[in-house]
Amino acid sequence: MRVMGIDPGLTRCGLGVIDVDPSRRATLVHVGVARSDKDLATHFRLTAIADAIDAVIERHRPEVVAIERVFAQDNLQSVTTTMQVMGAAMACVGRAGLPLAVHTPSEVKSAVSGNGNAGKAQVQTMVARILGLAEAPRPADAADSLAIAICHAWRGTGLLGAPADSSIAVSLSGRLTARTEMTPAQRAWAQAQAAQRRTGAVDPARRRG
Amino acid sequence: MRVMGIDPGLTRCGLGVIDVDPSRRATLVHVGVARSDKDLATHFRLTAIADAIDAVIERHRPEVVAIERVFAQDNLQSVTTTMQVMGAAMACVGRAGLPLAVHTPSEVKSAVSGNGNAGKAQVQTMVARILGLAEAPRPADAADSLAIAICHAWRGTGLLGAPADSSIAVSLSGRLTARTEMTPAQRAWAQAQAAQRRTGAVDPARRRG
Repeated sequence: MRVMGIDPGLTRCGLGVIDVDPSRRATLVHVGVARSDKDLATHFRLTAIADAIDAVIERHRPEVVAIERVFAQDNLQSVTTTMQVMGAAMACVGRAGLPLAVHTPSEVKSAVSGNGNAGKAQVQTMVARILGLAEAPRPADAADSLAIAICHAWRGTGLLGAPADSSIAVSLSGRLTARTEMTPAQRAWAQAQAAQRRTGAVDPARRRG
Repeated sequence: MRVMGIDPGLTRCGLGVIDVDPSRRATLVHVGVARSDKDLATHFRLTAIADAIDAVIERHRPEVVAIERVFAQDNLQSVTTTMQVMGAAMACVGRAGLPLAVHTPSEVKSAVSGNGNAGKAQVQTMVARILGLAEAPRPADAADSLAIAICHAWRGTGLLGAPADSSIAVSLSGRLTARTEMTPAQRAWAQAQAAQRRTGAVDPARRRG
């Protein structure tokens, strides 16, 4: 299974892609950080991040995308911006017709290190070890995106719009079949989206204008 | 000047377009509400809203887009969702290479009714009166998107990334020249974006993948 992880941020947005085989062994496919110019207006910065996400999806064709859930903290401006990056990123994943999973920071830390309160350095070290890399990917946002992808591949839950029962079933069976966890309606919609993007056909929503 | 207003929402997203002449008279070009199916996963719903925004921009070619600023309130889930819609919408405006302005709800209410605490019905009534419509556009989200557009056309401030000085100059002169308020760097970036979308050329950010 090929999984893309996104660590949302406007200044640095971590984008990682891994392959995970049925024995849960993970290998690195891509890792990078999308950046946006601080001198640009926020909406142009969001577009730059969205373009980078589109490019990684197009090039590496993940089967599922996982993103870290943002929580309201004391710094309201930073949360606002990260929520907006999350929204722009989610729309990219939707346009590609892919399933999207959301994981909390503590789920991610716990999945890679066994400790939901692990520090950044510990997460980076574990990501490198899991992927068999000589050194940890830098900056931290890049390593975090890989940690999110590993978390999703190993947990197999957290898909948006997935029926709770099927998540549990997948989780218990331990098989990596997240791709098929969408409901039939979700799947039909996703396939129509993907087909439209490929052919450039105009869909009814666009005609309505 | 042609202004598009967006009232961000996942279930109903108001989209309105008006023309405003130099004497500040406003006329209706388009009004509608983009809806998304509640049974779909959130990211697919965001894509549906983004597609509708793209379609209105493509069809009506606004010179500037204005959106209502969302504030953190007691309902955190609702704010999170609206922030995400805002992010997806902002990325659409950025992709079209257009300037984006943000106005607070009280600025919008004050601009159309003279009362920053006006109720929904009062805003709807004033929007209809300003645009010379026989009755108020419904639902409220549709009327709100027009109120946001009117607010921007009349105030001429609030552009993201605009130097504060130029906003003040425009505001004092009273002329509706918001389109030119971007900094030279913003304008160059916006023009490159728009040109790329037209020609389908690959930009360096995409090549980096």
